[in-house]
Amino acid sequence: MRCEIIAVGTELLMGQTLNTNARNIATELFALGVGVYYHTVVGDNEARLKEVFKNSLERVDLIILSGGLGPTDDDITRDIVAEVLELPLQRNEYWVKKMEEFFRRFKRPMTQINLRQAMVPKGGTLLPNDRGTAPGIYLEKGAQIIVLLPGPPRELAPMFKEQVIPRLQEKLGEQKDLGVLKSRVLRVVGLGESAMVEKIKPILDSQDNPTIAPLAKGAEVHLRLTARELSGERAETLLQEKLQEIREVLGDYIYGEGEETLEMAVTKLLRDKAKTIAAAESCSGGLLSSRFTDVPGSSACFLGGAVTYSNEAKSNLLGVEENLLNTVGAVSAEVASAMAGGARKLFKTDIGIGITGIAGPGGATPEKAVGLTFIALEADDCTLCRRYQFWGSRLEIKERVTQAALYLLRLYLLGKLQENDTRSGAENKVD
Amino acid sequence: MRCEIIAVGTELLMGQTLNTNARNIATELFALGVGVYYHTVVGDNEARLKEVFKNSLERVDLIILSGGLGPTDDDITRDIVAEVLELPLQRNEYWVKKMEEFFRRFKRPMTQINLRQAMVPKGGTLLPNDRGTAPGIYLEKGAQIIVLLPGPPRELAPMFKEQVIPRLQEKLGEQKDLGVLKSRVLRVVGLGESAMVEKIKPILDSQDNPTIAPLAKGAEVHLRLTARELSGERAETLLQEKLQEIREVLGDYIYGEGEETLEMAVTKLLRDKAKTIAAAESCSGGLLSSRFTDVPGSSACFLGGAVTYSNEAKSNLLGVEENLLNTVGAVSAEVASAMAGGARKLFKTDIGIGITGIAGPGGATPEKAVGLTFIALEADDCTLCRRYQFWGSRLEIKERVTQAALYLLRLYLLGKLQENDTRSGAENKVD
Repeated sequence: MRCEIIAVGTELLMGQTLNTNARNIATELFALGVGVYYHTVVGDNEARLKEVFKNSLERVDLIILSGGLGPTDDDITRDIVAEVLELPLQRNEYWVKKMEEFFRRFKRPMTQINLRQAMVPKGGTLLPNDRGTAPGIYLEKGAQIIVLLPGPPRELAPMFKEQVIPRLQEKLGEQKDLGVLKSRVLRVVGLGESAMVEKIKPILDSQDNPTIAPLAKGAEVHLRLTARELSGERAETLLQEKLQEIREVLGDYIYGEGEETLEMAVTKLLRDKAKTIAAAESCSGGLLSSRFTDVPGSSACFLGGAVTYSNEAKSNLLGVEENLLNTVGAVSAEVASAMAGGARKLFKTDIGIGITGIAGPGGATPEKAVGLTFIALEADDCTLCRRYQFWGSRLEIKERVTQAALYLLRLYLLGKLQENDTRSGAENKVD
Repeated sequence: MRCEIIAVGTELLMGQTLNTNARNIATELFALGVGVYYHTVVGDNEARLKEVFKNSLERVDLIILSGGLGPTDDDITRDIVAEVLELPLQRNEYWVKKMEEFFRRFKRPMTQINLRQAMVPKGGTLLPNDRGTAPGIYLEKGAQIIVLLPGPPRELAPMFKEQVIPRLQEKLGEQKDLGVLKSRVLRVVGLGESAMVEKIKPILDSQDNPTIAPLAKGAEVHLRLTARELSGERAETLLQEKLQEIREVLGDYIYGEGEETLEMAVTKLLRDKAKTIAAAESCSGGLLSSRFTDVPGSSACFLGGAVTYSNEAKSNLLGVEENLLNTVGAVSAEVASAMAGGARKLFKTDIGIGITGIAGPGGATPEKAVGLTFIALEADDCTLCRRYQFWGSRLEIKERVTQAALYLLRLYLLGKLQENDTRSGAENKVD
């Protein structure tokens, strides 16, 4: 089953609203094994909506339209669909009653224009809306399915889930030969996109089923595998085999799957190994602490952080010697290490992380460029400091710095810091 | 000028990634007076991308494609565009050099596959990319303009702004009768969208030119005014008049304009008044410090932060009495106030902020629900603590907590804390 999702609304076209409906619908359809081939956004304009809808009828089996079902004159989706399909609109008395109740409940008079919302193209099924006055419509014409949904996400989402998906599942059940799509995402850190592609080139070149797509995502790279098979079990087996093959090549570069973030993976490692941690941050300004505390339950291992922007705070809180700050300067390996040790002592943790650098845009000197950063880790069995040269805007540098710190921590927790010495510092810089 | 924005990428189609690029491009084009008529998303599939691109050539004057410019085999945009337009691809030696430099700087070998990224359809202009190896392409064919941009938003956005918009402005300048669109965004905090709409209802109801659109944006509300006039000067005058009218009604609820974030506005106030600040954070976990340090130059007023997740850290670092923690509990007005005082003393600042609450999903008790938060402010002339009940996911709560803290700080710096007592605590709870 090939599908197009058409969102109708000038506010989407103009960029005032993000098209989250298409994203959410696509995610659900994909899980069903429906191939979503196009998302389209078009404004509240008769001629263009007609053109887009006609075009869609020529290229897909399932058309899902959202928006333009309100009561006002610029809500045209219902009328255009009926006109193009040459179906008369009929008033649904059940919905008229429902709307009357709705308005009575909120002590507001129902206006004449609301009656438009009870009109349904002949042969279509009205999909009741618990959260507003615009019902949806489900329609089959020949072998094609057309679904109309209201635009507000909190009305669309439950209607789609509860009333449209079961109908689609039934239709899909009748088409035995379609098969099922299953997908997995591997999350990679410490390797840029092209370096990763280079490493798994033979696997990528021979891909067939599952397909494999690399994707750069902020400071990391994702790898999506998608298998299509008649049985879900068979698709799962194919995925597992290919995942295994990739894991053998990429090893520890893979830190997680699916929605797992790097901070989640590191927090899990800390908890598994019953280790506690604290952070002393200068250029990352609290972002590392914030990333740790984004993870539910992180309080079990992340005991605290000190954001020490000024030299005075570095001395007072963390016990960094003033002499050090005056000789080698705040942005130095020595100070990063002293900060890591200070954080560990202050919060009485197993591990301390110290970060100092120049986030920019100001603060650079001829010897120290924007993006220069030192990240130190201190624990009973390990004391080390790495030098990095990051690039990008202030916010990008903050993100990359914390990514590198989490990556370093991950290698330490895996006991891989020695073997992987060369790659951890260098490769986090590019992506 | 009619425009279509085509985003290429299976991850978008499948709903793994939100199409923020189309939103951002549309917003900018709209401000230029370009009519964006269609957004389309299509996967990394040759036949369908070809079909979509051909269809677009038949219906618009300006086509902006994003994504599919990477080095791997499933990056097909460049090739499809060249093929459909029947233009040979030529290697751009300048970009080959740039890529070599880029890889040298990061001490990584340039791979063969990267060379694909230096290929440009004949007659096209290469748009250098400061943030990655995929350059953009600007191309005129007959009366039509085709622009190719890399998919990652942090590469696309500056390239579009700095290299594409000036070229489009030049083209638009040649079309005299179009008129000029000018737009301004007002940023509002401390009022929900519906409360704001209620306040400025007469202005909204009588809007004509400029048009006025309210827009809920995370924890704040924006208001976009757009004027269309033949002369830019006249459009500017209309905007200024309407801005003045709205400012008279909304007053201090408006904290900024355009791209100014709340943390920027508060940092500016701190610097203007030569005040220094420190934060002690529990449930916000470093996010307030991180938001301060997102602002370039914030080191002049933000001296540091303590992320004290555990009770022990609250006592050791901030001097919160253990007795207090044992009797009223960590999530209490008393502890928030003690944290604010502790932060102020620790970092020797004029102002201290203390935040304690339950970010969820765990940690709630029958008396204290997820989202319950106390925010305290301490300075020589002011000691206060507010109680809030936020809602949402853990990350949403963290965002709302820091938004409320910044809002409270803003009122204090404006000397408005007394007059505004009622609104500051209550209204930040919603949206």
